[in-house]
Amino acid sequence: MTITRFKVVLTDHPWPDVAVEQAVFDAAGIELVAGPIEAPNAQAIEAIVAAHDPHAIICCWAQVSEQAIRLPSNLRIVARLGVGLDNIAISAATARGAWVTNVPDYCVEEVSDHAIATLLSHWRGVTAFDRDAKRGVWNPASANLKRTRNMTVGIVGYGRIGASTARKLSQGFGAKVLVTSPTLLVTHGSGSQLAPNVTVASIAAIQAQADAIILHLPLTSESQYLVDSTFLAALKRKPLLINVSRGGLIDNAALIHALDAGLLSAAALDVVEGEPNPPASVIGRADVIVTPHVAFSSDASLLELRQRCAEEVVRVLRGQAPHHPCNEPGQQEVS
Amino acid sequence: MTITRFKVVLTDHPWPDVAVEQAVFDAAGIELVAGPIEAPNAQAIEAIVAAHDPHAIICCWAQVSEQAIRLPSNLRIVARLGVGLDNIAISAATARGAWVTNVPDYCVEEVSDHAIATLLSHWRGVTAFDRDAKRGVWNPASANLKRTRNMTVGIVGYGRIGASTARKLSQGFGAKVLVTSPTLLVTHGSGSQLAPNVTVASIAAIQAQADAIILHLPLTSESQYLVDSTFLAALKRKPLLINVSRGGLIDNAALIHALDAGLLSAAALDVVEGEPNPPASVIGRADVIVTPHVAFSSDASLLELRQRCAEEVVRVLRGQAPHHPCNEPGQQEVS
Repeated sequence: MTITRFKVVLTDHPWPDVAVEQAVFDAAGIELVAGPIEAPNAQAIEAIVAAHDPHAIICCWAQVSEQAIRLPSNLRIVARLGVGLDNIAISAATARGAWVTNVPDYCVEEVSDHAIATLLSHWRGVTAFDRDAKRGVWNPASANLKRTRNMTVGIVGYGRIGASTARKLSQGFGAKVLVTSPTLLVTHGSGSQLAPNVTVASIAAIQAQADAIILHLPLTSESQYLVDSTFLAALKRKPLLINVSRGGLIDNAALIHALDAGLLSAAALDVVEGEPNPPASVIGRADVIVTPHVAFSSDASLLELRQRCAEEVVRVLRGQAPHHPCNEPGQQEVS
Repeated sequence: MTITRFKVVLTDHPWPDVAVEQAVFDAAGIELVAGPIEAPNAQAIEAIVAAHDPHAIICCWAQVSEQAIRLPSNLRIVARLGVGLDNIAISAATARGAWVTNVPDYCVEEVSDHAIATLLSHWRGVTAFDRDAKRGVWNPASANLKRTRNMTVGIVGYGRIGASTARKLSQGFGAKVLVTSPTLLVTHGSGSQLAPNVTVASIAAIQAQADAIILHLPLTSESQYLVDSTFLAALKRKPLLINVSRGGLIDNAALIHALDAGLLSAAALDVVEGEPNPPASVIGRADVIVTPHVAFSSDASLLELRQRCAEEVVRVLRGQAPHHPCNEPGQQEVS
């Protein structure tokens, strides 16, 4: 069996070069067609796929449409450079017998570190005071800071990342942590203690008690706009709201209203609906700390992501099963 | 014995009002003369003391000079609102039989939280990306971020605060922590493991191995300019330098040179020599994160600091020993 004839299209890569991917594919004798840094739109992706007839598509943020998945003559895999799959027409892949894969756990440390970084940045005034200092203002008397140990943090979503954030905040900082997810409420029940200072709670309990709320759940049709005007109206302690998951979890208009109305003390957003051109009415506010969807990123996580994703493609093109399948293609074509 | 005749001068208070102090002194029948928010200079303090002839002086940042301490007819105590004593002429107080006190452990959580807040802010790009976002820039491809678990952090100074930071970074984040102090090197020796992932090391080992260096030591004549051009020239891994102790630990000119020369990746400074008017050549840099000497501050720590300091004064004016004496007055005057 020769695999030199295989071809991979990489739709987009939000890092400067494709050296890591190239090295994996060169070693396997696979041809790499690399797209640009910024994701082209769905039609552009379809055109690239039509031009190259790839056996594999790797995507980061680009939309991989039904059409893009149907076009190739012998597509074996659509591999996501990341965790979430909301930009891939999974059913089209399943229908034609192609695998959809992701890299589920490469950035657990990064995303949980990032959530805590923005939490501490707010409670210790780092970002706001640094903005002042850059304008020549030195005003310690304006400090309104918090002792993390005295705070209650609510975490919505308790997968690998939520659990890591809970562990760091409870074991490291001694904060009280309330965690919730539909699964936890069924398997453990509200009030169950998972670890010292980590307790299962309802959304309502988190709304009532939390000094900060961290979103660590995927975007699905059920979780879209989880944080809407109704959710925000139920907050009791003027918390900090942190989103390191997907912009679509929050209704931007409701967020702006809640900040104006004093229902929230601030927001820290790594993801914002409308990115990569998020509305200035959200990200320009002094009470909103913003990073540009980089919570997953570190030199270590990117290397792991890129290598593991490319290796998954090589595995499938060699006729092996992927390590992280996200669909069940009815029938795999055999080369 | 009545204490209604006692009078306290509060030289400065970097918070908006003196309600907490007033309540403690009102309850004890002591008169409070409150100075301004910003610390007056030493001559102004001497004038205030001459005008009021207090039995106690409470100071935060103001210089309490030999002259200010000698002037009152019956001074019993100079009480510092804080930990460090570099602004009090201690020997003058000792010579005349007056106590000098501090509040040694009210902000352990805050200062260690603050150090980690600036560390994460740099490694996760929070402050820099937020600055970009406020200018309308959204550029995730520029990310150069770190996984805390893979990092080595050197902590210089291992009192209560250094130990707290070491614990949070090792237990919470799984980072490798190297700690050093003259005492530790003698009592435990280089290479001794104090806890999982917390090891005693020489300054040289920290200079060679650390990805971040946190200063958690007091300013004394020996530690002044600890971080000078010689110290900085020995760095091997282009670390982040964090100072949450005293500005005088770092030579500003050497710091600027080290940043320009790429010996450091960045600095995060809560204290800067020259504050409250620190040089723009330091705090205006994009590679320096700045907060205005607020690491000690939180709603919880300030309440504790202000109450405990005022109670220490009441205790001494009632003829009792202070809880936190910082000198040994040869002979206490008896009322």
